[in-house]
Amino acid sequence: MFNKEIYEARRAKLKQTVGSGLLLFLGNDESGINYADNTYPFRQDSTFLYFFGLPYAGLNAIIDVDNNREIIFGDELTIDAIVWMGSQPTLREKGESVGITDIRPCSEAPAYLANALQQKQTIHYLPTYRAEHQVKLFTWLNIRPGAAQPSLPFILGVVNQRNYKGPEEIEEIEKACIITADMHLTAMRIVRPGIRESDVAAAVAEVAYSNNYQLSFPIIATINGQTLHNHYHGNRIKSGDMLLLDAGAETEMGYAGDMSSTIPADSTFTTRQKEIYDIAVASHEAAVAALRPGVLFEDVYDLSARVILEGLKDLGFVKGDPAEAVHAGAHALFFPCGLGHMMGLDVHDMENLGEVYVGYDGRPKSTQFGRKSLRLGRKLEPGFVLTIEPGIYFIPELIDLWRSQQKFTEFINYEKVATYKDFSGIRNEEDYLITQTGARLLGKKIPLRTNEVEALR
Amino acid sequence: MFNKEIYEARRAKLKQTVGSGLLLFLGNDESGINYADNTYPFRQDSTFLYFFGLPYAGLNAIIDVDNNREIIFGDELTIDAIVWMGSQPTLREKGESVGITDIRPCSEAPAYLANALQQKQTIHYLPTYRAEHQVKLFTWLNIRPGAAQPSLPFILGVVNQRNYKGPEEIEEIEKACIITADMHLTAMRIVRPGIRESDVAAAVAEVAYSNNYQLSFPIIATINGQTLHNHYHGNRIKSGDMLLLDAGAETEMGYAGDMSSTIPADSTFTTRQKEIYDIAVASHEAAVAALRPGVLFEDVYDLSARVILEGLKDLGFVKGDPAEAVHAGAHALFFPCGLGHMMGLDVHDMENLGEVYVGYDGRPKSTQFGRKSLRLGRKLEPGFVLTIEPGIYFIPELIDLWRSQQKFTEFINYEKVATYKDFSGIRNEEDYLITQTGARLLGKKIPLRTNEVEALR
Repeated sequence: MFNKEIYEARRAKLKQTVGSGLLLFLGNDESGINYADNTYPFRQDSTFLYFFGLPYAGLNAIIDVDNNREIIFGDELTIDAIVWMGSQPTLREKGESVGITDIRPCSEAPAYLANALQQKQTIHYLPTYRAEHQVKLFTWLNIRPGAAQPSLPFILGVVNQRNYKGPEEIEEIEKACIITADMHLTAMRIVRPGIRESDVAAAVAEVAYSNNYQLSFPIIATINGQTLHNHYHGNRIKSGDMLLLDAGAETEMGYAGDMSSTIPADSTFTTRQKEIYDIAVASHEAAVAALRPGVLFEDVYDLSARVILEGLKDLGFVKGDPAEAVHAGAHALFFPCGLGHMMGLDVHDMENLGEVYVGYDGRPKSTQFGRKSLRLGRKLEPGFVLTIEPGIYFIPELIDLWRSQQKFTEFINYEKVATYKDFSGIRNEEDYLITQTGARLLGKKIPLRTNEVEALR
Repeated sequence: MFNKEIYEARRAKLKQTVGSGLLLFLGNDESGINYADNTYPFRQDSTFLYFFGLPYAGLNAIIDVDNNREIIFGDELTIDAIVWMGSQPTLREKGESVGITDIRPCSEAPAYLANALQQKQTIHYLPTYRAEHQVKLFTWLNIRPGAAQPSLPFILGVVNQRNYKGPEEIEEIEKACIITADMHLTAMRIVRPGIRESDVAAAVAEVAYSNNYQLSFPIIATINGQTLHNHYHGNRIKSGDMLLLDAGAETEMGYAGDMSSTIPADSTFTTRQKEIYDIAVASHEAAVAALRPGVLFEDVYDLSARVILEGLKDLGFVKGDPAEAVHAGAHALFFPCGLGHMMGLDVHDMENLGEVYVGYDGRPKSTQFGRKSLRLGRKLEPGFVLTIEPGIYFIPELIDLWRSQQKFTEFINYEKVATYKDFSGIRNEEDYLITQTGARLLGKKIPLRTNEVEALR
């Protein structure tokens, strides 16, 4: 945990922003896998972590702005729990470490809320992303699942603090990025024909776990990189394949790293692979070079997409004007996902609070296929932490669909594209902090260009 | 998956047992870690797996006994989902592979249930262990969280099938146990002074993951073995420590292995460690020798506890008659947990359905401290799969508490016990199948006696 003054200052600022009412923070509970006591690794809610720091299950908190109270609701351990789980500081001591002295039993939360309702206080809460949150809202506030109305002032207050990373947070994110880089370096050393995707995923996970870190998201380690979120690890890597690895570590305090790399099964890329890979790198480097305060990230996305189409035009996959093609959305055949996203206590930071607020400053997102997957489009500001991850994918199902619909025939040479349906996909990804003057790579540099990757093989 | 005849036969038997009404199977959904789309590794509900085999999120099923219908409710993938997650067989094809031809969209489940209620059909459902199950029962059947009344006939029907493992299941459990044994052998090879608990946990997990298996429960890898379910991995192992490892693999089909071992940090145990360890082994071997059909497992527990107290008496920790001490509950100071539990699709098999039904055949469980943690007490029958895991623990908090309460002073020599408050704990664990004539070890034998463990170091 950070020192308590950090949490006190964060709460004070939030109180001031929201101004009145009662802020209800639903902490996370343990999640049963196949029965209640066989639990997934516990993860506290990120907003709870940001304002209250305590990474323990079974807590909820209230900031009662109207009555100037900050309360954590939770129960002390029983002797049975101590026998099974070991001694811990008391909840009172834990609370004090984050500047909270008002600790009350869980059972008192509903009555406190009922009283607030009776006093006509506004009860602010955030969007729910776990069914347990829905059950709490229903049993405490009689809000039926599906009928919740999250508080926009609360959302905006949280987003406007969490989007700007403080120095203590950047230090934590950097730790996550260093271990994340080690995960990718490990994979670059072991990938070879004959081993399984699962061998790579396991070795990559081991790097995080041995450092007592978690994974910031489920590992993607696949020879079918054209499938964007492919968590199947059952294939054996063959000569001629590329392995796409997307993996990140999460520090004990909950901060994420997130990188991707594309590694040839053999010691070098084939010519066919290198041609496409080099285009992805050109797009990547163009995007990174454009990062600085004041730049609209959606413009950086357009730039990265245009560079991809320019390269693919040289190879005969596309025709016409690349900028026009990007405007029309034709690039999404090869690059159907976004260029990057905010990163912090969540790998997609605050995705639960709404991308429009986090990544677009309230501006509506595009509904165009491809562009609608861009999670970040706003003007960049110092303190933002984000990923850069352009990719080039040959997705057989999408190629067949668009071709059958005769979509963008003015831009796409389907005859040529169809010959690459077995190509798979390429993505590289790095993490950047927006500084006062530009951007700084977080963590260690991992090999990006083909010669750098090949040098490690 | 097994072949479809297996699932058809299982469902036919269940229909016959329950006899009438409608059986509602709530499949599991994806579980968000810190936002909806960042999910824990998906795990299907075990009873759903047993009767419907499909390991996919977003499915629910109904066996309408009255109308002789078997229906899976679920939705086919959209093109967006295929782009992100890859091609899959259609839900119709998946259903056919487990003998289900009646596939309907998710959205039709509520109306089907509403109609059943109108027809005065009895709707049977099982106990819930995830909040998402509570939300489904509420939104579909208007059953408020906390007000569910699970169906005893449904519970008993499931328990009476799942408790008796078929040959196809034993084969799967054996696979899990072989990888589980490899996890422990790996730890025995790498534990040494200077490495961290997290290094061991990571290496052990890697064995499961590289085989494309999951963990059947969160790994315990601790130098504080006296804390029974200690998931902290932050300590560095020192000379003189013992590492207690409790870890198991889960096959792709969901079957669990579960073993424990206690490994000295140095190449040999100290004399003090060996004296206690040998007692734990004597208890273990006595329990294993007693396993056969017709034996009450609670009697085996008594036997194992008595052997522990006999050994501890020889060393001066306890006094009086060991059998009387066990009857009174004095052994629970050293052995506060159970001797074993059923194992199958869950590591504690069907814990969500109720230990009284699964492990006690409906007989009420003891409320005595220690004995109340025995998950299995019933008469053993061929086809049962269970763990054997006696342990000896010196738990400082419990020693201090009992001593201050002057508990069992006729049996316990607290002066001597207090000198072992820094000892930590010992547990070894193996998995057994009850056969027609006795019991068979599942998986590979891992070193149990001190000389066997030391031979690997």
